[in-house]
Amino acid sequence: MVNENEIINKLASGEIKLHEIEKYTQSIPEAVEIRRKFMETISASRLDNVSHFSLDMEEAMKKNIENPIGAIQIPVGIAGPLKINGEHAEGKYYVPLATSEGALVASVNRGCSTITQSGGANVRIIDDKMTRAPVIKAESVMEAMELKKWIENHFNELKEAAESTTSHGKLLKIDPVVIVGRYLYPRFVYSTGDSMGMNMVTIATESALSLLSKETGAHVIALSGNVCVDKKPAALNLIEGRGKTLVAEIVIPKEIVHKKLKTTPEAIEEVNMAKNFVGSAISGSLGFNAQYANMIGAIFLATGQDEAHIVEGSLGITTAEDKNGDLYFSVTLPDVPLATFGGGTRLETAKECLEIMDAYGSGKVHKFAEIVAATVLAGELSLLGALAAGHLARAHRDLGRG
Amino acid sequence: MVNENEIINKLASGEIKLHEIEKYTQSIPEAVEIRRKFMETISASRLDNVSHFSLDMEEAMKKNIENPIGAIQIPVGIAGPLKINGEHAEGKYYVPLATSEGALVASVNRGCSTITQSGGANVRIIDDKMTRAPVIKAESVMEAMELKKWIENHFNELKEAAESTTSHGKLLKIDPVVIVGRYLYPRFVYSTGDSMGMNMVTIATESALSLLSKETGAHVIALSGNVCVDKKPAALNLIEGRGKTLVAEIVIPKEIVHKKLKTTPEAIEEVNMAKNFVGSAISGSLGFNAQYANMIGAIFLATGQDEAHIVEGSLGITTAEDKNGDLYFSVTLPDVPLATFGGGTRLETAKECLEIMDAYGSGKVHKFAEIVAATVLAGELSLLGALAAGHLARAHRDLGRG
Amino acid sequence: MVNENEIINKLASGEIKLHEIEKYTQSIPEAVEIRRKFMETISASRLDNVSHFSLDMEEAMKKNIENPIGAIQIPVGIAGPLKINGEHAEGKYYVPLATSEGALVASVNRGCSTITQSGGANVRIIDDKMTRAPVIKAESVMEAMELKKWIENHFNELKEAAESTTSHGKLLKIDPVVIVGRYLYPRFVYSTGDSMGMNMVTIATESALSLLSKETGAHVIALSGNVCVDKKPAALNLIEGRGKTLVAEIVIPKEIVHKKLKTTPEAIEEVNMAKNFVGSAISGSLGFNAQYANMIGAIFLATGQDEAHIVEGSLGITTAEDKNGDLYFSVTLPDVPLATFGGGTRLETAKECLEIMDAYGSGKVHKFAEIVAATVLAGELSLLGALAAGHLARAHRDLGRG
Amino acid sequence: MVNENEIINKLASGEIKLHEIEKYTQSIPEAVEIRRKFMETISASRLDNVSHFSLDMEEAMKKNIENPIGAIQIPVGIAGPLKINGEHAEGKYYVPLATSEGALVASVNRGCSTITQSGGANVRIIDDKMTRAPVIKAESVMEAMELKKWIENHFNELKEAAESTTSHGKLLKIDPVVIVGRYLYPRFVYSTGDSMGMNMVTIATESALSLLSKETGAHVIALSGNVCVDKKPAALNLIEGRGKTLVAEIVIPKEIVHKKLKTTPEAIEEVNMAKNFVGSAISGSLGFNAQYANMIGAIFLATGQDEAHIVEGSLGITTAEDKNGDLYFSVTLPDVPLATFGGGTRLETAKECLEIMDAYGSGKVHKFAEIVAATVLAGELSLLGALAAGHLARAHRDLGRG
Repeated sequence: MVNENEIINKLASGEIKLHEIEKYTQSIPEAVEIRRKFMETISASRLDNVSHFSLDMEEAMKKNIENPIGAIQIPVGIAGPLKINGEHAEGKYYVPLATSEGALVASVNRGCSTITQSGGANVRIIDDKMTRAPVIKAESVMEAMELKKWIENHFNELKEAAESTTSHGKLLKIDPVVIVGRYLYPRFVYSTGDSMGMNMVTIATESALSLLSKETGAHVIALSGNVCVDKKPAALNLIEGRGKTLVAEIVIPKEIVHKKLKTTPEAIEEVNMAKNFVGSAISGSLGFNAQYANMIGAIFLATGQDEAHIVEGSLGITTAEDKNGDLYFSVTLPDVPLATFGGGTRLETAKECLEIMDAYGSGKVHKFAEIVAATVLAGELSLLGALAAGHLARAHRDLGRG
Repeated sequence: MVNENEIINKLASGEIKLHEIEKYTQSIPEAVEIRRKFMETISASRLDNVSHFSLDMEEAMKKNIENPIGAIQIPVGIAGPLKINGEHAEGKYYVPLATSEGALVASVNRGCSTITQSGGANVRIIDDKMTRAPVIKAESVMEAMELKKWIENHFNELKEAAESTTSHGKLLKIDPVVIVGRYLYPRFVYSTGDSMGMNMVTIATESALSLLSKETGAHVIALSGNVCVDKKPAALNLIEGRGKTLVAEIVIPKEIVHKKLKTTPEAIEEVNMAKNFVGSAISGSLGFNAQYANMIGAIFLATGQDEAHIVEGSLGITTAEDKNGDLYFSVTLPDVPLATFGGGTRLETAKECLEIMDAYGSGKVHKFAEIVAATVLAGELSLLGALAAGHLARAHRDLGRG
Repeated sequence: MVNENEIINKLASGEIKLHEIEKYTQSIPEAVEIRRKFMETISASRLDNVSHFSLDMEEAMKKNIENPIGAIQIPVGIAGPLKINGEHAEGKYYVPLATSEGALVASVNRGCSTITQSGGANVRIIDDKMTRAPVIKAESVMEAMELKKWIENHFNELKEAAESTTSHGKLLKIDPVVIVGRYLYPRFVYSTGDSMGMNMVTIATESALSLLSKETGAHVIALSGNVCVDKKPAALNLIEGRGKTLVAEIVIPKEIVHKKLKTTPEAIEEVNMAKNFVGSAISGSLGFNAQYANMIGAIFLATGQDEAHIVEGSLGITTAEDKNGDLYFSVTLPDVPLATFGGGTRLETAKECLEIMDAYGSGKVHKFAEIVAATVLAGELSLLGALAAGHLARAHRDLGRG
Repeated sequence: MVNENEIINKLASGEIKLHEIEKYTQSIPEAVEIRRKFMETISASRLDNVSHFSLDMEEAMKKNIENPIGAIQIPVGIAGPLKINGEHAEGKYYVPLATSEGALVASVNRGCSTITQSGGANVRIIDDKMTRAPVIKAESVMEAMELKKWIENHFNELKEAAESTTSHGKLLKIDPVVIVGRYLYPRFVYSTGDSMGMNMVTIATESALSLLSKETGAHVIALSGNVCVDKKPAALNLIEGRGKTLVAEIVIPKEIVHKKLKTTPEAIEEVNMAKNFVGSAISGSLGFNAQYANMIGAIFLATGQDEAHIVEGSLGITTAEDKNGDLYFSVTLPDVPLATFGGGTRLETAKECLEIMDAYGSGKVHKFAEIVAATVLAGELSLLGALAAGHLARAHRDLGRG
């Protein structure tokens, strides 16, 4: 039996590797502690807070983490109530937001209040899917064309092979099947139920590819060929959508714009034009919005979504217009991968945060998606309102000076 | 004196708002608890884990959060040792990664081992800056041109005004000054020391704009005109850089590619071409890489960086090529906002995670930046290696079948 | 009867407008001459060459031009023979190229010779369609969703309405139907036979929209909502294709690379990587190629294609790789609108240039498309070869110096 | 002495190549005729119109074309008068447009009339430059950084070397110097006088690179590394500009909008928002406009500009807004390469078309640039007006139906 100090010494000398500690200990908590102590030793620092956690690390090591030393903490605040008129979310919700950016929760909260007072946000799920696009290399463009045709003609067999690996995933289509030179990128499009689904669709696609290779000799270069497009910002996702494609909108009476946001519909419309359209256009941006990533980030962290998917959630377009004197305001988020089950949602704090919205587990993901969209609407509205109020204030001052 | 239940009842009725609880309580911990209990009441759930935190919530409420109910936890694992040959990071490092995506830490760890065994990653900071670009509306394009000239001719005064608001920020240049119609977008470029700097540059830019408005009558529509570009994916940042612009590279001897990654330099080169270049190109992507967002995300969460900046960190280009039979492999990250001081880095667990790398506080941000780049290199290499190994395995199988 | 000088005087005074001359003359040639003389008068210049044309201007005024003063001339040169192994073009072709850029025809010609000597270019038409996407504004996102469903459920009626306006156009699908806020962009996708088809699909779509509006009250904001995407560079077209989607490829034996291009497969592969992939990626470009626009431009002008469509033809991706010591080289052009009938192809010189390739008129457009793709392959290969030869020469010189 | 038929037979057999005809003939016209006859022979067609040209083909062969068989003709029409209030163009202009797209000249003409009646277009040249960005490959990122510093520290020597090759070109800056992995892309930025300047800056950059290579051993992979960005659509050019960066604007009184365009400022504003902003954004487009390419194309062909540069001219942003009840309308074209001297401008018809605007030759390019911008404004305004008029008409009809 090796004792703690011996293990630490062997870690320091490289004799034992970080992921081998579990071999020499009785329990995972013990291994986690030794690993953390080793970190303290080599850095001459104390990890008292990292060690202060309530997560079941044994469970976490099965699904979520390797070489753990503990957990980080991020404060979580509440915005709400937020009235939502969705197909799945109906009523008032409180939204947990995990962030270290001061003023973000307060800003979203102000948006919630404005929306709720205006009768609530309309939200619709435009589309719902998860995708995986491998890359295949043919001998020639002729062979690539034949493979494309084979895929189109054998969709049912490929679907059967893909779905044999999953109880919840359904292969909806393989579209587009892009050809570049002799490379082929078939985009497999699935519905994935309440899971975010990346693992599910990877495994399912691998099964379909096995069939394809067996029948045609097609050579798969990589299970992902970046036409998915996973965790990278891409126009493809903006156009075609990925994860949940969401729209939330609100009409805010002029008086409420004045009272709650201290500005006017016209001023918000102008800021949206100058910043979110013209500014984003001239920058070659894929985000025609002010701060989707802030709300997406805070709600993703609170609820155990994959943090790298914040990249996809940052895409989208905000519109603002005068509608008979009132303000019509909308957010469109084409690409929001979400889960209420599996992955990081099983972490104890994530589960609790989802439960605040009654959005944990099976059959809840559409409700959750609508809450996410309405929350983004609230934050975006609040920031544009603040910018417009500053703009108005400066306009008055400028006039006074003139 | 109002008691807990009364407050909760008034919260439920809307008489007291979420952010007003502190008015009725003796201490912040008490308010946090009441707010959490209210959440439990309305959702009929238990928030035992959210309540299990060691953060000093009173401090957090000053800088990082509003309406807190506690904290979320995310497991943090260690990858390393990772040998780095930088200008600021020299030696072997252990990198804390907070994630709920199983296999990520293990994958990065494998990359670290491969890099370390190959002599370590070369890392360089190509550029270092933080930017803010307001939008100004002129009466006409003629006036916009005059404002542009005024800005160019009065850089020193604008610099003085901007820097009067900060002890660490320096205004380096105002470039480009983009004109679209009668809108003007001057991009203020600063160095910000060890802070990420968004707040700093916003305040400094506001001061410069006050001078500009006073002297010229220029009307500022919004303090940010989306030419910054903050938290949105944009070609502008890819080209011009933002935050830290980083390159990390490694030459891996053929034998190590075989032994550690179970593949060949040629196979990795081919996967990189088919996936990261051709696949990303046809998708209209700004990320010519496999998974920067995963490593950026995990290290950002561990160290208290702004989660919405993961969007910017996802941009960049991976190259892989045969170099005299060995593998040359590089990652280029043009846009990584980072801090070792201020913002979320003050959270107790973030500080501890930074200290593991001796990267907390003043004078450490360049060292930290180099560690980040090397970590992205490790994860990217590991994933491309795994894809290439599958590709090789399939190639052998295909040949066997033929 | 007004005489020539009187008309010119009235034109100068503004009494008669440029497009009204025909009212006062006996014939179109006379009107053209007067208009040209008026231009000579006001500019004190001679338009002798503009007046030297053989076009039937009376016919041109019906279809192609207003307010004509004559014609411009652009020299047309021939590249070829170019061996093509297509599905529609089989054999050797001579390609007319209209350009004023010296060395372009010679460069393409060198590529043709290299390709022909290597056995000819493989060409395939991946897809063939023309698109129009109007923008509709609904009252709310809910109504936008209903309109989307209505369109999906009434495809057959919409198809009938669309096709009632045309003998050659077929409505293939309406996909995607994009929703942003309360805007709706249904992309109508047609086959258009030998015509380029923009007018055809505009008229057909207008007819379908009339039905849609009548049945649903949908309000069409504009017949084109820029999701088509016509004559603007857009990732949508890169991904989904528009006009003809084309691939051409060739395997060039190493010896021919040496002899004809004075370089090596490796050097061409490296230039393609450094320039067409890395350089284009970091520039936020939609063209991962060296010079498609040059060949597309020259062949478009020679054959009467719409010059503004050169924009779309500039999109695409070039690949180059070592294939068992030889050079595999391909061009992929996702978006090439083409016609062999109608529009500018009826101009006398355009018709003649098409006839050189036996590509004028009905049933010829696929053949023509394959010739276009092979010509782009020739020009791209030649330029990359020249850059690589310089690269090799410099490499030798550098070594000599070292 | 070989006679005509013998040459044609040898061309058919491949004994003589297309570019060798001149060796066997007395004169260039004779060679051109033989080459054309050969084309007639192999295609069994008549090239009567291609042979009808007045260009001096001997001159053209020195600068503009190889293997000529004659010239193509494109009809040229006139739009105008167009009142321009520029810094270089002041007064009323008639603009020659070469196109085969029916209705284009008429549409531009309507825009000219509307603008002129509203007092004329304000035009400004925001920037003026031509760029070339080679790609250099270093041994490592460290060496790439050193090369970058060398370039920054030796700007004056590099400038001297570059400018030694040209009498008109001036090297303004080398910025940015982009590093990706171990590749380096220094963007050389020049002023080029009245020439478009691509050849000039290529030669000048080659000279600077010789010095760089000699002094540092830097290895140039290719003289153009696609960071220029020449003839490809790229966000870099949108942001940084290339060629002439132009803005044209107009305020159109409400009454003139009604009378000339049959619509309202609000309707035009709405079409611009729905189509040019939202539609382009969701399509991943770099063209936030309706039809810049049409006007750019027609004026480029008329005046001998490089047709492949239409790609760059298609980039840009249109704004439309209500200004105190009137219509403010602007076009911004960041990337318009132009010449009034050299290249295709020397072709006889191009020269004449430039002379119509008094824009041929030395000292005229800024005037010409302003005319181009105003012409784009006219065409864009006219099309948006037409779309808006249809929108209004449909709105009335919809109301009537309701």
